[in-house]
Amino acid sequence: MRVLGVDPGLTRCGVGVVEGVAGRPLTMLGVGVVRTPADAELGHRLVAVEQGIEMWLDEHQPEFVAVERVFSQHNVRTVMGTAQASAVAMLCAARRGIPVALHTPSEVKAAVTGSGRADKAQVGAMVTRLLRLSAPPRPADAADALALAICHIWRAPAQNRLQQAVALHSAKAPSKGRLA
Amino acid sequence: MRVLGVDPGLTRCGVGVVEGVAGRPLTMLGVGVVRTPADAELGHRLVAVEQGIEMWLDEHQPEFVAVERVFSQHNVRTVMGTAQASAVAMLCAARRGIPVALHTPSEVKAAVTGSGRADKAQVGAMVTRLLRLSAPPRPADAADALALAICHIWRAPAQNRLQQAVALHSAKAPSKGRLA
Repeated sequence: MRVLGVDPGLTRCGVGVVEGVAGRPLTMLGVGVVRTPADAELGHRLVAVEQGIEMWLDEHQPEFVAVERVFSQHNVRTVMGTAQASAVAMLCAARRGIPVALHTPSEVKAAVTGSGRADKAQVGAMVTRLLRLSAPPRPADAADALALAICHIWRAPAQNRLQQAVALHSAKAPSKGRLA
Repeated sequence: MRVLGVDPGLTRCGVGVVEGVAGRPLTMLGVGVVRTPADAELGHRLVAVEQGIEMWLDEHQPEFVAVERVFSQHNVRTVMGTAQASAVAMLCAARRGIPVALHTPSEVKAAVTGSGRADKAQVGAMVTRLLRLSAPPRPADAADALALAICHIWRAPAQNRLQQAVALHSAKAPSKGRLA
């Protein structure tokens, strides 16, 4: 299973590709950050995020895209940009028929560290260990994107069983698979 | 000046096209709503919004796109969908090099009714009068999209002078024009 993790943001959008299956050692295929200039117009920044995500999808052809679920409890100004960048990432994936999964920050932290309240350093340390890297990926957005991808690989079996059960028991349920 | 107004939303995204210049009677060229099913996956809904906006851009070839500026003071769940739908509208416009303008709800109300605290019925009544329609456009999202387009036509001369002044006095300012 090859997953592109996206830690959405307008200034720095973390991206990381991880391959593997639950219970086996994982492999990092790539990690980076899509940046857009803070003084550019919002529309142009969204186009730049789209171009960056498209490049990562073209290069790595992931089977799943895992995006951090955005909440609006945080800083008002930041959360709008985060929601808009996440929309672009989800749009790029869905347009190609790639399933998109959303994971909350605490789900991601719990998956890689065992605690939903772990700090950035702890997440970075575990990502480094799990992917057998020589140093924690920088910036933190890049490490978070890898953590999202790892979280998805480890949570996916349970989620897929749930989706299959929902599909079986509800004739009205919309398709959870690829776009036609 | 031909403007596509967009009242962003995932369930109902209002769209309206108005042509004219400040100080002259305005003409409505089209009005409608892009709808996406509430039970579809978020990624698929964003793709549907994109396809709807693209159709309106193709058909009417607007010179400007005016989108309602989203604030996060409102309902948490709604505002995320609104921010994400607005991101898709801005992305579609910026990708074509069409300038995008954001106007706040109170700017729009003040432009068409004279009061920033006008209610929906008052906005609908003024849109009907200003565009010489036989009845207020339904649903309210469609009327709001037309109000956004009218607001942009009336505010644009002042905004353009401001942008030119900023461009002249700041060598570091990013281009406010079309994408290269």
